[in-house]
Amino acid sequence: MSQREDCSDFYKGRAVLITGGLGFLGSNLARRLVELGADVLLVDSLVPDYGGNLFNVADIQDRLRVNIADIRDENSMDYLVRWQEVIFNLAGQVSHIDGQRDPYTDLDINCRAQLSFLEACRRFNPKAKVVYASTRQIYGRPLYLPVDEMHPKRPTDVNGINKMAGEWYHILYNNVHGIRATSLRLTNSYGPRQLMKHNRQGFIPWFVRQALDGEEISLFGDGSQLRDFTYVDDAVEAFLMAGASPAADGQFFNVGGMGPTSLKQFLETLLDVVGSGSYRLVPFPPEKRSIDIGSFYTDYSKIRSALGWEPRVPIAEGLRQMVEYYRQHREHYW
Amino acid sequence: MSQREDCSDFYKGRAVLITGGLGFLGSNLARRLVELGADVLLVDSLVPDYGGNLFNVADIQDRLRVNIADIRDENSMDYLVRWQEVIFNLAGQVSHIDGQRDPYTDLDINCRAQLSFLEACRRFNPKAKVVYASTRQIYGRPLYLPVDEMHPKRPTDVNGINKMAGEWYHILYNNVHGIRATSLRLTNSYGPRQLMKHNRQGFIPWFVRQALDGEEISLFGDGSQLRDFTYVDDAVEAFLMAGASPAADGQFFNVGGMGPTSLKQFLETLLDVVGSGSYRLVPFPPEKRSIDIGSFYTDYSKIRSALGWEPRVPIAEGLRQMVEYYRQHREHYW
Repeated sequence: MSQREDCSDFYKGRAVLITGGLGFLGSNLARRLVELGADVLLVDSLVPDYGGNLFNVADIQDRLRVNIADIRDENSMDYLVRWQEVIFNLAGQVSHIDGQRDPYTDLDINCRAQLSFLEACRRFNPKAKVVYASTRQIYGRPLYLPVDEMHPKRPTDVNGINKMAGEWYHILYNNVHGIRATSLRLTNSYGPRQLMKHNRQGFIPWFVRQALDGEEISLFGDGSQLRDFTYVDDAVEAFLMAGASPAADGQFFNVGGMGPTSLKQFLETLLDVVGSGSYRLVPFPPEKRSIDIGSFYTDYSKIRSALGWEPRVPIAEGLRQMVEYYRQHREHYW
Repeated sequence: MSQREDCSDFYKGRAVLITGGLGFLGSNLARRLVELGADVLLVDSLVPDYGGNLFNVADIQDRLRVNIADIRDENSMDYLVRWQEVIFNLAGQVSHIDGQRDPYTDLDINCRAQLSFLEACRRFNPKAKVVYASTRQIYGRPLYLPVDEMHPKRPTDVNGINKMAGEWYHILYNNVHGIRATSLRLTNSYGPRQLMKHNRQGFIPWFVRQALDGEEISLFGDGSQLRDFTYVDDAVEAFLMAGASPAADGQFFNVGGMGPTSLKQFLETLLDVVGSGSYRLVPFPPEKRSIDIGSFYTDYSKIRSALGWEPRVPIAEGLRQMVEYYRQHREHYW
């Protein structure tokens, strides 16, 4: 029996809270937890433009609970964390661009609210296991490839700095205050239920949207930049395994992906899956150039050794499922 | 002519702002800048228990300006940063213990206010050079010794996490917004004008106070923990050189010290300088054990190569000057 099957049993009947639960990762995780028989509570504030979307769980709304609240709302969090056995802490401001435009909101959500959320856990639910959604962005422009967890953290934007602090609060509360916490550093995740309304939350959904709309896609630079790509089902499995395993306590892991693949190759695979579309290479705009990180892909051997996780879904297959999903449900995302 | 002399000329007639300017490092830096003929403005909010002390500059008060204001006060900072050529940004909450007890205040000062201060510079004084006072604490418990700048950042308390973010905002504003910024990671600094009223800002001043008061000093653990120690005049020179040198722009440097020396050896040197006193080894209290970092000392070859800085004042000599200062001015610090 693989570790994946073991960890599936773990969630049956278990009280699980997901902050940011109506978003891309949160809703996909919720769907899997409902299948596994968990008692799921989603907390999400539906901040416009942030990714929360009630349609993401509309077909399973009678199999879980939804509580609309903001992670910055300390009193609500003090109550909502109680009695939860596993907490997937996914609420965050995830746009690099929004973080540069409004660094204070980014700081309030990605630093201050993380601290107050952990304080809520410490005071009202110190036995909880917390799994935090971090990001490869904390590494910044790589000094070497693939990037392992020991790589220096040199984030290239405010969002990356605040996520770096938010992650480390979790590790600190594990080390000092006895909460069990794990941080997962996600790379380029993609799949169904990702926000498609604007292009400020990463390039993949925007490429998919443009391809489906038959628009010519602009790729910055020469397209040779390498990336790794994680299909959302693989990312969800990493969260489930981290939530279930004591070996993950106090640890931070790169959740790597398929690749490395060049952006050009990724885009060509996408256009092939969609069956139409085109792209052209354009020079970097100056404001993007200054925070561009060049090639980036992760070494995920740490999580493979500790938890047995590795990505399984090939890029072409993941994109096929993603494209099919949005063809069916376009009106809820465009 | 040494680099130190070069950089001294640089400050003659130059407009210099020091945030936290009434504190330990700030006031010693101010005194040196006044000697060099700089036009010095000190900004300090005199938060009780934080280290700001008007006596630190009482004898030179007609040779500089003092503006009482808090770095969290955005409107005041928007004004005060204007026309300054070099800004030494030393305002901060520096107590590990206070940071654990009140993490939100630590976050407001060491993260949010740093961000708003840099925004003030970007909008109202983008040509400024900013030198930030960071700390070895961002490294946490060392994985190897001596600790160089590439060592992973794994802070062991809230204060260390927030300082890590505060430092990186400076590097970001250098890289993205065109401000010239340098971060100096200080190790154990000591000398005249250090806060002596309580023991929450590091062990050195408290040891000195207890030795001068003839109290038995408690040393946690077996006293074999290694540290490096920087006399404040050496630290001041590092700030001056970083402020004057384009080679420092966008860089972060360990400002190392004399040593490595065991805490026990340091304490014995202190008692020898004082000429009386005693100590005993006591076990770590649990709350200190959880954030203790063991032995720590820095590799300062990066700043030596880039700026020509290295520590010059031996520990016994530094302690002699420190002890003499407090013997003379005890009533302003106890």
